[in-house]
This record gives sequence, structure tokens and C-alpha cells, in this order.
Amino acid sequence: MNGDENQIVASETSIIAEFFAPLTEGDSGAFELKDDCAVITPEPGFDFVVTTDSLIEGVHFFAGDVPSFKALAVNVSDLVAKGATPVCYLLNLALPEAPTRGFLKRLTAGLAQAQQTFGCHLIGGDTDRTSGLLTLTITAIGKLPKGSIVRRSGGSPGDIVAVTGTIGDAGLGLVLRKDEALADALRSMDVECGPLLESFDKPRPNVAVADLVGAFATAAMDVSDGLAKDAARMAATSNTGAELHIDAVPVSAAAQAGIDAGLFDKLDMLGSGEDYQVLLSVNPGNWKKLKAEALVRGIVINKIGVLTEGSAVIWRDSLGQPVDIAVPGWDHF
Amino acid sequence: MNGDENQIVASETSIIAEFFAPLTEGDSGAFELKDDCAVITPEPGFDFVVTTDSLIEGVHFFAGDVPSFKALAVNVSDLVAKGATPVCYLLNLALPEAPTRGFLKRLTAGLAQAQQTFGCHLIGGDTDRTSGLLTLTITAIGKLPKGSIVRRSGGSPGDIVAVTGTIGDAGLGLVLRKDEALADALRSMDVECGPLLESFDKPRPNVAVADLVGAFATAAMDVSDGLAKDAARMAATSNTGAELHIDAVPVSAAAQAGIDAGLFDKLDMLGSGEDYQVLLSVNPGNWKKLKAEALVRGIVINKIGVLTEGSAVIWRDSLGQPVDIAVPGWDHF
Repeated sequence: MNGDENQIVASETSIIAEFFAPLTEGDSGAFELKDDCAVITPEPGFDFVVTTDSLIEGVHFFAGDVPSFKALAVNVSDLVAKGATPVCYLLNLALPEAPTRGFLKRLTAGLAQAQQTFGCHLIGGDTDRTSGLLTLTITAIGKLPKGSIVRRSGGSPGDIVAVTGTIGDAGLGLVLRKDEALADALRSMDVECGPLLESFDKPRPNVAVADLVGAFATAAMDVSDGLAKDAARMAATSNTGAELHIDAVPVSAAAQAGIDAGLFDKLDMLGSGEDYQVLLSVNPGNWKKLKAEALVRGIVINKIGVLTEGSAVIWRDSLGQPVDIAVPGWDHF
Repeated sequence: MNGDENQIVASETSIIAEFFAPLTEGDSGAFELKDDCAVITPEPGFDFVVTTDSLIEGVHFFAGDVPSFKALAVNVSDLVAKGATPVCYLLNLALPEAPTRGFLKRLTAGLAQAQQTFGCHLIGGDTDRTSGLLTLTITAIGKLPKGSIVRRSGGSPGDIVAVTGTIGDAGLGLVLRKDEALADALRSMDVECGPLLESFDKPRPNVAVADLVGAFATAAMDVSDGLAKDAARMAATSNTGAELHIDAVPVSAAAQAGIDAGLFDKLDMLGSGEDYQVLLSVNPGNWKKLKAEALVRGIVINKIGVLTEGSAVIWRDSLGQPVDIAVPGWDHF
């Protein structure tokens, strides 16, 4: 790191003009961030979808991390799970000290990478000093065909329950961040820790999933607080129960290697959270078509069970026996 | 305060269902806050305008305060100053401890009162525990006729500079919060401190101003960081200078009584911030019409000067002499 990186940027105007304005990518509605508001212009036939999430130092990320990529990703995840495509976002930044150029470069590089990954751009925000903790709040705005939003509540008994991608990687990444000895044990077995750490640091919700959700899902939500907890929530909101199969829950090669070695417990992974995959229900008559469309888009999607009459959510092992999933999943309190 | 008020509400689901969901006022796009997203449906011929601001304990408000009314008001102020009418908002809440029922009641009562005052409602948000400071972030969404947003940059030399309401009250309210002796001195002179304190705690941007801004303003912004600083910003963004008259800046009866008694300095009031009035420029040919329309709506608006060629912003006293306004206004850094 050179001297320039350590230079303090103490003026809000300079921070905005040099570091944040380029992230608007020339959107005329963002006014180069010179006004206190941005304009978003609707497209005929589309609704906007809005979501917001904060990442707080020590609560959601480790001190010293600059999780700007993740701050945008977790919001994009909420949009995608409702069938919406990201358009733009606002950033509220609470800084415990006047930022250095190095910090601002890391922050904006993460945002720039996330913008490119998810196809959206900055339109506004607010920067404050705090005597508290570094906090990044993003409010993301997406769009979807008018009236097409998919809610948590639309599932019916008999619907197939499916999930995109793999489950538990981010939770394992978090464990590895805290437990160097475990990471070393994995590496000694030639298991790559990189993808697990990356899942925690830079979750990559797949925006291509949005179209599938809109076209096929009866209910959908993102998996952020642990699959077990989120599946129970989706069933409850849909006024159904569910039968789910632990063996059917997809895990990554790295996670499976750790499970096989007895270092990870799959039951823990159902509760660990931050997967940022999409959990959805689909009418069984549409399942094959959904699978085919997913294949075309390079999206992995797996059936993990069905919604049922009643309100019981039952997880079963490979022998069909009910298993008590004690893991409560992430709660903010 | 009864025992019930001290009861801890430790479940996020309960907080949302009991305290926040009623604030959606039945908007079907908010889904009773049961999904992670909200839908906002555009009206034909209208754009949306988005703005966001955070209030942080110890930075923007005193420990022990629950400035939920103000958190919405400061965002509404940004919308109104651009000619937009508030529609809805999202709330991010970072709580240093599990909240009591009493805290949640105060918080939501303030929001409910602000919603009624400004004509908007809650559509979403995010609640987190923090080991830092109580923080309220609001992202507010307004609407205006397509393409009609008024920027800071549209002023021309010769335009009249005007401001709504009175200036300096909130700054005095803040001084009175910190200085009990001064408050007592004022009261002993039969000056009411209430309106000044209220201006700091519960600023009331007037949503009726939005139409006037849209119809008449060449440039506009809200006065939040001190009139002197904000006027200089508007002139700079419009590529003009300005000649402004200290005597023409409107002050409240309570403020004037304090000035007359030598307890307040009007120059300080030009830099104290948090006025949440609208500063605007208007073509001189439209001034009379603007005044008449304001009168019909019960809006006080006063001419304080003109935009000029060049880039100098000059404040003059009652004798026309230039006065150096040393007060820098509020900066976030």
C-alpha cells in the first residue's frame, strides 16, 4: 500500500464526486449525485420492486472487511427471489472515521464488481460519520412485468419444493473464517476452502433465476436465514406443511468432502444461513419444463420435497425417518 | 410507564407483525411486510423520486431520543424540494438492544404521526441488532409528473432567490436542548421555547410546497446544512453567483425575540442547519404569481436576494455592506 492509499478524504463532496459519481454509470436520473434525490422512470408494463438490507460491522461482517460487494448481493438476492431484475440502488454509509483513499477504493471496487455481476448501478445515497460501527445499507430497486411478483404465500399442497445452487457453503465459509485449524485440516485433505470462503464474502445470486421464478414459481423467497427456517416460513406463509429430504439438499463438492471426512454436519448446514439461493414451490405439472428452462440458462435447481396439507414441516433422512432439525437458523435478535 | 412498557419484544416477526405492519395502511404492494420486497406501481405520466437519509444516535440526535418523526421528515423535505409528493418509504432500524414495547410504541407513534402529516406510508425495511448506536435510515419514494423534477442546477443570473417558512429555528432548538440556562433566560422574557425545540425535534416540511416548486422554481433544494452553505451550493451548481440580504431572511417571532435580547445572533442562524425549508430560484416574471399561489396554499415564502453573473456569493447587511458569513454550515465530516 502506498502513501496515497493512506491519505484521508475528509470532504463529503470529494468522496461523492471522485468515488461514488462514476458508479452511476451516466444514468441521467442520478444527476451525478449532485442533488439529494434521484429519478427512476418506469417502463410501460413494468412495476418496480424495492428491498433494503443493512450490513453492520461485528454483526454481519468482520472488522476490517469492506463487504460492499456483499451488501449489494444480499439485496439483489431478495429481488431475484421475487422474480425481479435489478435496476439500481442507493447506498447509506456510516463511517466510524474519515475514510482513506485506500478504503474508498476497496469499497467502490467491490460495488463496481457487484454492479457488473448483477447489472445495476448507483443512483443515490447518504454518507455520515458515526461514533458507532461501519454500516452499509443498500436499498435496491428492481423491475418486473406488472402484477407478476411471486410471493411467499402462493404455495399449495402438492407443489414441489426446489432450491437453486448449493446450500451451506457460506455457513461453512464463516466457520472457516473463525477456525483456522479446521481450514488447515481441510486443506491437508486437498479440499479447496476458497469457494466456501468466497460464498460467505461474495455471494452471487443469479439474476437469470428471476425469469424462472416469474414464469414457474407459485411461492418463492431467498434463502438467507438458513434453509430449514426459511422453508418453514414459506410453508407457514402459504398455509401449508412440507415434507423435505435432507439427502436431496444439494451441497458443493467442497462441502461434501468435509461432510465425508466428518468435519461438517449436514444438519448444521440446513440452518447456517446466507446461502442467497432461491427457494421456490412449483406445480408438479410444470416441474419438467422448469428444469429444462433452468438447464438452458445454466441454472442448477433441485427438488428437495413437497408442500403438504396441514402445517407440519417434516425433514426426513435417507431411510424416510423424521429428523428433528434443532438448528433455529439465523435470527436478527 | 407500566410494566407492559418495559417488556422486551425479542422476536423480529412479532415486531414486524404487531408494530410495523399497521404502518403499511393496507397497501397491497407491501404484503403486510411478510415478503422481503415491496411493489410500487407507477401511475401513467409520473416518475418516481427516491431519496435516503440516516439519523445516528449521538451524531444527529441525543441518546434517549426516538426521532422517528424526524427521520421521515428529513427525507420528505428532500422530496418536496424537488417538486415531488411523498408516496411511501422503507425503514432500516439498527437497535443496540432488544427493544421494549415502550420503545417500539414511541417509535411507531412518531412514524404514524409523520405518515399522517406528510401523506405517505411504510412499505418495507430491515431490523437488525447492532453493538453500535441506534440508527434510523429511511428511504423515501415520491412521485412527480414525468420529466418535471427541479434540480439545483437550473438557476440563471437575475432569478429571484426565495425561501419558505423561517430560518434558524431548529438550530436554536438544538442550542436550547444543550443550554438549560439559555432556555431559562428566554422563558424569563416570556419567549416560548416550545416552537424552537419542536423545530429541532419535529421538522415539518410542507408537502404543499412541492406543486409550487414544480410550477415555478428554476432551481431548488432543501435547506438542511445551513442557509448560507446551501445557498452557496445552489448558486455553484447553477453556475451563478448570488447577492443575498441578511435582513430579508425570515425568522420566527421566538427567534426574533431572542435576537432582540442579544441572546441569539442572526449570522449564526444562517449556518445552523436543519431548517428543512425549501430554497428556490424563480424567474422574476413569475414571482408575483408564485407569491399569489403560495398565499392560496397558506405557504409563507420570502425573497432573500437574486442570482448573479459570476460565482461570488455575497451577503449584505441592512446598509448594503458585504458581511463575511464565517459560519461554514453543517458538514458530515
